[in-house]
Amino acid sequence: MTTLLVDIRQLLNVRDDKAPLRGAALAQMPCIEDAWLLIEDGVIAGFGRMDELPANLKGHPDTVDAAQGLVLPAWCDSHTHIVFSGSRESEFVDKIRGLDYAEIARRGGGILNSARKLNETSEDELFRQSWKRVEEVARMGTGALEIKSGYGLCPEGELKMLRVVRRIRDRSPLEIRSTFLGAHAFPERFRDDRRGYIDEIVHGMLPVIAGEGLADFIDVFCEKGFFTVEESREICLAGMALGLRPKIHANQLHASGGVQLGVELGALSVDHLESLDDEAVAALASSGTVGTMLPTAAFFLRMPFPPARRLMEAGAAVALASDYNPGSSPSGNMNLVVSMACIGMRMLPEEAIQAATLNGACAMGLGDTLGSVAVGKKAHLILTEPLSSHAAIPYRFGRHSVRGTIFGMERRIDGE
Amino acid sequence: MTTLLVDIRQLLNVRDDKAPLRGAALAQMPCIEDAWLLIEDGVIAGFGRMDELPANLKGHPDTVDAAQGLVLPAWCDSHTHIVFSGSRESEFVDKIRGLDYAEIARRGGGILNSARKLNETSEDELFRQSWKRVEEVARMGTGALEIKSGYGLCPEGELKMLRVVRRIRDRSPLEIRSTFLGAHAFPERFRDDRRGYIDEIVHGMLPVIAGEGLADFIDVFCEKGFFTVEESREICLAGMALGLRPKIHANQLHASGGVQLGVELGALSVDHLESLDDEAVAALASSGTVGTMLPTAAFFLRMPFPPARRLMEAGAAVALASDYNPGSSPSGNMNLVVSMACIGMRMLPEEAIQAATLNGACAMGLGDTLGSVAVGKKAHLILTEPLSSHAAIPYRFGRHSVRGTIFGMERRIDGE
Repeated sequence: MTTLLVDIRQLLNVRDDKAPLRGAALAQMPCIEDAWLLIEDGVIAGFGRMDELPANLKGHPDTVDAAQGLVLPAWCDSHTHIVFSGSRESEFVDKIRGLDYAEIARRGGGILNSARKLNETSEDELFRQSWKRVEEVARMGTGALEIKSGYGLCPEGELKMLRVVRRIRDRSPLEIRSTFLGAHAFPERFRDDRRGYIDEIVHGMLPVIAGEGLADFIDVFCEKGFFTVEESREICLAGMALGLRPKIHANQLHASGGVQLGVELGALSVDHLESLDDEAVAALASSGTVGTMLPTAAFFLRMPFPPARRLMEAGAAVALASDYNPGSSPSGNMNLVVSMACIGMRMLPEEAIQAATLNGACAMGLGDTLGSVAVGKKAHLILTEPLSSHAAIPYRFGRHSVRGTIFGMERRIDGE
Repeated sequence: MTTLLVDIRQLLNVRDDKAPLRGAALAQMPCIEDAWLLIEDGVIAGFGRMDELPANLKGHPDTVDAAQGLVLPAWCDSHTHIVFSGSRESEFVDKIRGLDYAEIARRGGGILNSARKLNETSEDELFRQSWKRVEEVARMGTGALEIKSGYGLCPEGELKMLRVVRRIRDRSPLEIRSTFLGAHAFPERFRDDRRGYIDEIVHGMLPVIAGEGLADFIDVFCEKGFFTVEESREICLAGMALGLRPKIHANQLHASGGVQLGVELGALSVDHLESLDDEAVAALASSGTVGTMLPTAAFFLRMPFPPARRLMEAGAAVALASDYNPGSSPSGNMNLVVSMACIGMRMLPEEAIQAATLNGACAMGLGDTLGSVAVGKKAHLILTEPLSSHAAIPYRFGRHSVRGTIFGMERRIDGE
């Protein structure tokens, strides 16, 4: 057994919860000042106040000194498209010049641009590019990561993406979850044959992906011009029949009915939520589905932020994620996500931090093992620079406060 | 003579200009692909295409390899309050909870909160805290920095701040300029005696500050509830009589007339500009004064961004700066400033990069020596990570692309 002791000025988010927090609980941040925490074989084995440190742990030979900083659960980023090829800054410039989505699509931009690039890229090169991004977000404190396919839009491309996710999962100390998002857009060759592509997803791709165990979840972009509620339901049900849990891209551009579909199917999460009507809010609030908001994507697309306070006040469980992708959120910095949630969506620091840890974990089905400081949960932790309080994490907007991380028994700490 | 050769994939912003760019010129980014650049004693001594490298420079013993990255002038951040004591995240939380400025002020918040903290802090401690921030922004590519006083609001405190700026200037490889902003707010003890505080600024502080050569510029917060146009004029003229060039905090919360005052006085810059009327735009456009916009501050304060396109189309010279300060922009990350200008204000990458380099230099009176790549200018340079184009600098929002910097002969480069 390998053990590690951490000496901490303030230990944050100490709670046994395994289900997503909502309402007043989300705004509570149980802390221990001047704390110790013991890790055994990558799992939190105990913690408490330093003046009550058990005698057998005094002078522990492997001690991390975080006594000047805060320690909190690592970010759980439950919505990313981090496996992609190349970048799309030329579309970024086109949008500044005022081109709309339709015109950018006519010029070969959008999801189909990423799909073309991806299908021209070898699996090894795709892994190399994606691995660099995973390492980059790990340095900024992300300890669990959901990764979607959806830039293949053909059996070969989708499988390539999911195999890259598998390779990342095998090699990384981060907790990785994989989502099949074949229904991200209709590829060119099925432009006039929606039924044909849905059949390819349901009968061509899904059985292979489920057979190889390449995906945990199934996701659909349920939106005007993409997949209808009926099509989304059919695809999700086909995935669910093969053991994949549903997540849905819902209500980004329109009140699409995607939220209600997610609730109906018992989805782990419905994501985006920029365009909500009363019905969608009420449906989500009365369900066990997590509502995942992506503030950096809303900002990058110059859209209004999702109505976080309205959702929280209605009693919905909300999470925050980065949406890291080349088109609408070329950033996986969860510290900035949390800052923007506080500034742009008026979430309290406690609410935003917990939405990006425990509730994010729940949106990946990982509430049992991650997202808070509890005995038996995995020790995926952020160690901060010296900070006067946890409110400084979102307040120090534009630079992050992550001094280092512990992912299980792997530590990466500046100045150690 | 010490020389340094840099091997560069793309050299950006190659131009001899010393005056601020405006109109179409701002959107042009002269570049050299596959370039060399020679630095002699901290000054750019030559540059050109690598296939035309002079024979005597081949195999130069001190060569920096930037062949995978871009090289551009370091950021010139022309508006900061980086010398401050402590942080103000409790006010950040109060604002999320919906408290307005007046209520926060009643609770002891705002500028007077920073003034209290500053006056309780020793000069050495103030230097220690501020130096850390200067080093932090230097790592993110800032090579020239304007720093304001204005948290003393009494002779002793203002002098302490400006002496700290002097110590930073003496020790740092960054180009530092110092601004006396005694007229940042009315201190408590002069709440009912505006005339008394203005007399203290003009007759008490200014002669000492100018006598010790502690400030380059004079600045006034010209705003409803702070200093009127008439008071601002009086204070600026008093500073100008002692050799200080004026800069003005203008039109942040109201169309205050501050822009026109700045133009009338020939100010180096008028800063903020969230609240512009046609008259102010016309006055600025027809002047040599730079209009400095602070997008991270607007975002942090949940205000509309300044109308950058309107100003540029009218022909005004615009700059971008961070406004790094504990109340409204707790970040000095100029990469994020440039990103937000592109996303929130629809500036093109070329416009934003030049507004944050050459035009920022001009807003500090440094257009002759900084802000572009030209023989004879100081070699304050950013070396980026491998990027497909300069548009990737603002596009990669939420993480910065700075691999290292050269400030004169001092290089700080990752992986070297």
